[in-house]
Amino acid sequence: MSRIRPLSGFPELLPSQRFVEQYVLDRLRETFELHGYAGIETRAVEQMSQLARKGEIDKEIYVLRRLSADPNAAETDELGLHFDLTVPFARYVLENAGHLAFPFRRYQIQKVWRGERPQEGRYREFTQADIDIVGENSLAAHHDVEIPLVMLEALENLHDSVGLPPVLMRVNNRQLAEGFYRGLGIEDTAAVLQRVDKLEKIGAAAVVESLAEIGLDAERASKVVALARIRTEDDSFVDQVRALGVNHELLDQGLELLTAVVDAAREAVPGRLVADLSIARGLDYYTGTVYETALVGYESMGSISSGGRYDSLAFDGKQTYPGVGISLGVSRMLVPLLAKGRLVASRSVPTAVLVAVNDEETRWEADAVARALRARGIPTEVAPKADKFGKQIRHADRRGIPYVWFGGMDGEVKDIRSGDQPAANAATWEPPAEDRTVRVSGAWD
Amino acid sequence: MSRIRPLSGFPELLPSQRFVEQYVLDRLRETFELHGYAGIETRAVEQMSQLARKGEIDKEIYVLRRLSADPNAAETDELGLHFDLTVPFARYVLENAGHLAFPFRRYQIQKVWRGERPQEGRYREFTQADIDIVGENSLAAHHDVEIPLVMLEALENLHDSVGLPPVLMRVNNRQLAEGFYRGLGIEDTAAVLQRVDKLEKIGAAAVVESLAEIGLDAERASKVVALARIRTEDDSFVDQVRALGVNHELLDQGLELLTAVVDAAREAVPGRLVADLSIARGLDYYTGTVYETALVGYESMGSISSGGRYDSLAFDGKQTYPGVGISLGVSRMLVPLLAKGRLVASRSVPTAVLVAVNDEETRWEADAVARALRARGIPTEVAPKADKFGKQIRHADRRGIPYVWFGGMDGEVKDIRSGDQPAANAATWEPPAEDRTVRVSGAWD
Repeated sequence: MSRIRPLSGFPELLPSQRFVEQYVLDRLRETFELHGYAGIETRAVEQMSQLARKGEIDKEIYVLRRLSADPNAAETDELGLHFDLTVPFARYVLENAGHLAFPFRRYQIQKVWRGERPQEGRYREFTQADIDIVGENSLAAHHDVEIPLVMLEALENLHDSVGLPPVLMRVNNRQLAEGFYRGLGIEDTAAVLQRVDKLEKIGAAAVVESLAEIGLDAERASKVVALARIRTEDDSFVDQVRALGVNHELLDQGLELLTAVVDAAREAVPGRLVADLSIARGLDYYTGTVYETALVGYESMGSISSGGRYDSLAFDGKQTYPGVGISLGVSRMLVPLLAKGRLVASRSVPTAVLVAVNDEETRWEADAVARALRARGIPTEVAPKADKFGKQIRHADRRGIPYVWFGGMDGEVKDIRSGDQPAANAATWEPPAEDRTVRVSGAWD
Repeated sequence: MSRIRPLSGFPELLPSQRFVEQYVLDRLRETFELHGYAGIETRAVEQMSQLARKGEIDKEIYVLRRLSADPNAAETDELGLHFDLTVPFARYVLENAGHLAFPFRRYQIQKVWRGERPQEGRYREFTQADIDIVGENSLAAHHDVEIPLVMLEALENLHDSVGLPPVLMRVNNRQLAEGFYRGLGIEDTAAVLQRVDKLEKIGAAAVVESLAEIGLDAERASKVVALARIRTEDDSFVDQVRALGVNHELLDQGLELLTAVVDAAREAVPGRLVADLSIARGLDYYTGTVYETALVGYESMGSISSGGRYDSLAFDGKQTYPGVGISLGVSRMLVPLLAKGRLVASRSVPTAVLVAVNDEETRWEADAVARALRARGIPTEVAPKADKFGKQIRHADRRGIPYVWFGGMDGEVKDIRSGDQPAANAATWEPPAEDRTVRVSGAWD
């Protein structure tokens, strides 16, 4: 069998890269749990009838077939791999509503699959980390403030601990835009939103032109564009909106809610969140606050973390389950940084100590040393072969293992970086804390 | 939309059950890393040409198709979901051999999929935790001793920490049986092994009869069965085999290797491993030591952890990669215990403290208390609504949250189990360690 070519769109990590990913996932989990979010996992498959409900995306679904299935038997309902974690979560909420306490906070870190054409930053298999809060029939507005703060805190922790680039989250509110458009007497607000969504891509003049096509006069079109160009780090966006002289009850609600988000973020994670009235989140099913996040300096990667409020995440015929949530594209964020060597692990194995073996007859002695070290939580392996010591040291060096132990319980331990080799007892010796486990750090210019 | 029926064969856990699973996975990871195993993940899909190499199992493969794929375009190589973690690992080793240091120890905890008919204890989606050591061209015999000890230590840690039932691992060696059969002058040793494998199911008389059908006389057939009935907790199996009066070089090798496994396990995890010469592991691709493990008292669940030595895990045309490994069926072990309520989490959310809200105007004060507690690693949430305090306490109670905080930074904290409500400062108050995080424990009769 010849060397197998990697599959395009299905990134796989080397062990040292996986350490970084695992570290990041552990830190995310820590932050989410600190805020009371419970972890769940859903099955990888959903019934096609569920997946197809979300419109546009159905092209990208991977459909499953049992190899042994009777090709003539009609399937009752085909299965497909989930393409996000929101559709499965909505189904999970309906299926388990009687066993959940609402409002229900959950985080979910899993792979999702999309059968799309692979391209830079787009994968067919990738890991997402989602947090959502879902209520039964109602969900208070302060959760729209909570969700971005939790995700920003998680990303800020990664910035502090491994030097992940800082992020900038841009927040808007659909009620704000909707109210503004209605205040201008526009009825088909969705058509306007759809055109404004292209502002960043095609520019203000082209948007004004496309708005004229759907019947907006120059004055109203220019106000629509003026609204979308408002972007402030504090709540001064309110005055800028007011200066446009439009009034509507929905606009007031939107302004109030967006102010609450911006004010809270300024206190909790200063500099990481702005009100940006151009954010529309395309055709997504959001009904209120919307979020989008870029890594500063890596804006070309696109949004790494997006989400928003949806007034009806799920509906079972009687109860409605409104929610607000945000999703972090873990692979989208990490794979390019790993490929560029921007995030690195200090070694390729968890091992802190390699116990050298004198000869195969005394391997039991090396095993005893390893047991004593592991009993105190020090990751240890025993050399695979009683080679010359130089070769055993190279075995450690190739893997980045910092220490090699020679002799029995009363032996010597060499720090292979400094060459120091003091006497040590396996029942008491401790490596420095920073060598005990694999460290993850940023390697930025 | 009416209530959705769960999909048979795709178990999903409630939040409190998922805590237990996550706890178990964390402990497994801890043990594996303590022994120097590096974590990897492989993509969920493999090319069908790779998956189909393993014979019998191809019936159970889930094949993938892109919903938007042109039905007339011939697929170059279809993709299927992996049905174990060994086939993907072998492919990963070949694909990344130049970046790995051998012998390479890896653990891999992932879901696998099998399109088989769902039945008690059989799932279509389930989680496995595998450890393997793979060498380049050669792999020393002492790794056959290491692998079962690491898995037994992992299971013993779960026995100690959450009261998972104790396990019994049964170990055999294919060289031992092969050598014994050859020593009896049998040529088609595979045919004999295949029949002996049914001993437990059909009994000794039926096996002797089936051996007669392939030409074994009564004396040799009875020796074959006598060998398979040997089971000892120490190395006394050697004398029992010798007493059968058969000699062969392969037999000697097998006896020596099995003795090493049994002796090492008696020291490291006494009572958890026996030499059992009936273990054959069916048609699997093992070539040396083989392992099978039952939960004591739950033997009807079948083997929860199996594996063995394979002399050619992978081959790239030049190098051979021999390996030895063992797989733990995490779902197979946990799902029945969770369903029976044998393993339980102390609460359904990570939250240790609920901060009560006086009125919506002072929610900021509750938020500040929560921030102060979280800053010291105490999982905290703020009440969703300024309800009457009795209702806010019930909110905590329903989720198993042990503490409710009243007032600002200088407030009072109620232990809702005892009713005690001392004054406390949010910058310094600490819950007892056992209340800080969710506890997992066993609820056995």
